[in-house]
Amino acid sequence: MSNETEIATLGEFGLIDRLTKCIKINNSTTEKGVGDDCAVLSPTPGYKTLITTDLLLEGIHFDLTYCPLKHLGYKAAVVNFSDVYAMNGIPRQITVSLGISKRFTIEHIEELYSGIRLACEKYGVDLVGGDTSASVTGLLISITCIGEAENEKIVYRNGAKDTDLICVSGDLGAAYMGLQLLEREKVVSKQSNEKNFKPAFEGKEYILERQLKPEARKDIIEELASLSIKPTAMMDISDGLSSELMHICKQSNTGCLIYEERIPIDFQTACMAEEFNLNLVTAALNGGEDYELLFTVKLSDYEKIATINNIRIIGHITKPEYGCLMQTRDGNQIPLKAQGWNAFN
Amino acid sequence: MSNETEIATLGEFGLIDRLTKCIKINNSTTEKGVGDDCAVLSPTPGYKTLITTDLLLEGIHFDLTYCPLKHLGYKAAVVNFSDVYAMNGIPRQITVSLGISKRFTIEHIEELYSGIRLACEKYGVDLVGGDTSASVTGLLISITCIGEAENEKIVYRNGAKDTDLICVSGDLGAAYMGLQLLEREKVVSKQSNEKNFKPAFEGKEYILERQLKPEARKDIIEELASLSIKPTAMMDISDGLSSELMHICKQSNTGCLIYEERIPIDFQTACMAEEFNLNLVTAALNGGEDYELLFTVKLSDYEKIATINNIRIIGHITKPEYGCLMQTRDGNQIPLKAQGWNAFN
Repeated sequence: MSNETEIATLGEFGLIDRLTKCIKINNSTTEKGVGDDCAVLSPTPGYKTLITTDLLLEGIHFDLTYCPLKHLGYKAAVVNFSDVYAMNGIPRQITVSLGISKRFTIEHIEELYSGIRLACEKYGVDLVGGDTSASVTGLLISITCIGEAENEKIVYRNGAKDTDLICVSGDLGAAYMGLQLLEREKVVSKQSNEKNFKPAFEGKEYILERQLKPEARKDIIEELASLSIKPTAMMDISDGLSSELMHICKQSNTGCLIYEERIPIDFQTACMAEEFNLNLVTAALNGGEDYELLFTVKLSDYEKIATINNIRIIGHITKPEYGCLMQTRDGNQIPLKAQGWNAFN
Repeated sequence: MSNETEIATLGEFGLIDRLTKCIKINNSTTEKGVGDDCAVLSPTPGYKTLITTDLLLEGIHFDLTYCPLKHLGYKAAVVNFSDVYAMNGIPRQITVSLGISKRFTIEHIEELYSGIRLACEKYGVDLVGGDTSASVTGLLISITCIGEAENEKIVYRNGAKDTDLICVSGDLGAAYMGLQLLEREKVVSKQSNEKNFKPAFEGKEYILERQLKPEARKDIIEELASLSIKPTAMMDISDGLSSELMHICKQSNTGCLIYEERIPIDFQTACMAEEFNLNLVTAALNGGEDYELLFTVKLSDYEKIATINNIRIIGHITKPEYGCLMQTRDGNQIPLKAQGWNAFN
């Protein structure tokens, strides 16, 4: 970068001024954004407030070798929006806290912020506050999102009932395969002596974007609302389908049966799994970071659900004594396992 | 500690279960706490929602050599409550995100959480969500607080007017002097060869508590309400009186005149400053971490304000062209400087 400026030249207040000066407020519920002890919001009468928060740490959740700062900012915001949509709500505001080590310049942080702002514009969310500090090592991003939902429209994880249909939006496993590809090319790049090393990304754009710049399924929430479908239970898929479905079943006190052949998988994901000699279904069940919606609807909503593009019915809810099962392509029924990612290992 | 358990033995979900199992909900506005994609809150009709967030990083904001984890948890929560009181609001909920390196055990994190829970109980706040992750190095705590205030009772920083009285709760500079003492004893302890080294803390309990276990001025907010006083501007003193007062004057487009002799300083603070040969008034003006309330009231509220214990009138608001001044004990008027702490240097 040509213009690099140490953060110490501005100090904390100067940096905050610079980052927040071009913030626009889009929501009528945002009364006062950045600049006081608290942000002030006007809750919409008849609506509940939804709160979610997410922490992203360098070296644990992201690797700046291949993750552009703008994409990182975008993703950090979007994963929070996804949690609000997963309650059948609308994200309204975020606060952004950053810990920044000395190797980052003002231009770096502006790049990160531009991604956060882009996500906010796209999803109609206001940036209303935060905290900015030096850190000893690396970058950390802590975002809290405030959303709203009409009282009777909120969908929890615990409402699934026997015979409900299990639905998934989009496709699964792509973000995980994108990460494998990025990790491989990082290793290849390090071993390569070529000055102009070009990673082998051609034809893999979809899985890379799924990893680096995921979207939240605002469109699905809007479509469900327009068809007057209220899911009985819902959550977003961040740790993997298998783990999330078991959360819903545990909280709803039910079992489930899903069908391997019904799990939605993109062609690029399948190709990549073959190239890496990885089990495709395992990637789709446990890969994580899909940020798709997993939800259950009453059997009587079948006709309506079938009209929505990008929704796949993958199975149904059962009585708790049956457990959480997947029927494989060869007709066997095997128990689901929550192999979700464990950062503490 | 006798029972030390690696966090990896529980994993993320196990740790969250263990930390959140004994959480009680105290507020009627908390509809759903930990356990879904979002927490769900019922805003009180006629009230605004207040949001504030604070990031604490090991090596930047705290030093575990002398800061007990329980105190740290307590302080991390309380500094957020302080921001809500500074808007004349009531804190209702917090979310807690933790980044935890490998040197911390489950027992350590339970200790930290016990401090957070204690603060929540004392101030009537509910812990409703968060995120927990491994970190590469050190401990980090990101807390967001959600509060409420009646529409017409919110106090911003920008409402101070010419002739308003400038008021401060409690006393200033003690937390800063406590920090100096802790830092000195840390050095002495390292140089000491004695096995049972005892830091020289006797008679210094007040300034140590101000640094390690500060309180938020809920009592002052309640007293102001009971006397029907609505400050014209208010903020909490986290970066130092001087810097905060200049924020109020800038945002209110006013000047100010405060009197050195009126700045409230505790006896222990004064003794410690003498021992360290530090300028006492500089410590009180710029020390920071006092978490006292700085506010302005109309001149006509003088009689009422004078009846409150623990409130000192330190000066008055002036026209903007006079600037921000302090009249010293010898009668000179000198400009205030915002020497607030800059973590980026």
